[in-house]
Amino acid sequence: MTPTITAFERSPDRGQGLARDTRVRWALEEVGQPYDVRLVSFSEMKEPAHLALHPFGQIPTYEEGDLALFETGAIVLHIAERHAGLLSEDANARARAISWMFAALNTVEPPILDRETTRLLERDEAWYDQRMPGVEDRIRNRLGQLSARLGDSDWLDGAFSAGDLMMVAVLLRLKASSGMLDEYPNISAYVARGEARPAYKRAFDAQLAVFTAASTGS
Amino acid sequence: MTPTITAFERSPDRGQGLARDTRVRWALEEVGQPYDVRLVSFSEMKEPAHLALHPFGQIPTYEEGDLALFETGAIVLHIAERHAGLLSEDANARARAISWMFAALNTVEPPILDRETTRLLERDEAWYDQRMPGVEDRIRNRLGQLSARLGDSDWLDGAFSAGDLMMVAVLLRLKASSGMLDEYPNISAYVARGEARPAYKRAFDAQLAVFTAASTGS
Repeated sequence: MTPTITAFERSPDRGQGLARDTRVRWALEEVGQPYDVRLVSFSEMKEPAHLALHPFGQIPTYEEGDLALFETGAIVLHIAERHAGLLSEDANARARAISWMFAALNTVEPPILDRETTRLLERDEAWYDQRMPGVEDRIRNRLGQLSARLGDSDWLDGAFSAGDLMMVAVLLRLKASSGMLDEYPNISAYVARGEARPAYKRAFDAQLAVFTAASTGS
Repeated sequence: MTPTITAFERSPDRGQGLARDTRVRWALEEVGQPYDVRLVSFSEMKEPAHLALHPFGQIPTYEEGDLALFETGAIVLHIAERHAGLLSEDANARARAISWMFAALNTVEPPILDRETTRLLERDEAWYDQRMPGVEDRIRNRLGQLSARLGDSDWLDGAFSAGDLMMVAVLLRLKASSGMLDEYPNISAYVARGEARPAYKRAFDAQLAVFTAASTGS
């Protein structure tokens, strides 16, 4: 059965691939699972039909027969558990990859999102220039720890996994709006390895096509 | 094999149960799995031996034979997948419970943590009183959506699950430092149902005993 995901009708990042549907598209491309996309507008996201799928009124969602899921992490994990390609056959390696998925979303992404929220909502506040260095220091703290663990390895724990997919996706968010990744050459190279994967490229192109069509269409 | 988790030698919350080892203790108590605890000091958490277990120098960690995990979400999921009591037998219900785990950690907790970080690091800044209302509005936005979905139900998706465990644990963090939960009677009652579970009480008492011993010991 072909799953259906939701994505922004018009992505606020203008097709940079930072909206979270790209992460799900990437996972589906890695495992070779075709999918359908239903585009939703910002007003539709707050309506009862979408809230029934996603209680917090966001994208992406994932529908497959009777199953409806929300939260990017849960969707990627669901895909990774049901197809080969994103989690090892070895039970311990699978569990460690899931640790990295949670680490990407819960430990590395929060300070990055704090920076984005600050830029979006507080740019015109008197405190902006004073507050931002502390926010960025919290990001650097995480990047330093990640860089130390990654070392010279290609991926975080042996073969590419759903943990790497999520970590690279989180770091791409920072790359798009900051030069901070350049301070950590091994992390920059790690992100570049992720972006070079054919499955990532297909996912990126697919989300960009939606934005381009919306921008040039009627 | 009895797993070993790590916890703060002296919890910064003074035994209120907000440190993340409580979430893992709660999961282990729900499934009836005995466990050992290794206490670590703040300086030990930054040393190579602990960083080998947890790249970001935090607690809890989870060791079981050859397996070493970090990230509370990943540890609770690992426990839930290997024992009965925290995830349904039904595959779709399991996947939905995992959606709620991620929602607790990635959608509900971040604004709550932002409020805590702000209180901790920005209380003496000139902008504190101006900035805090916006931070709290972001929490209320999530609580309103959660309240609407929960409605009159006891738990988020039928029977109590790992999703409820994580959501209640996240909300307890807010309850400890704010009266905001009182604005949402169904959420307050939901949290109270979680706290009333015997497994939660055992987990809470176990972490409190560590703090009490550290405070009264030599």
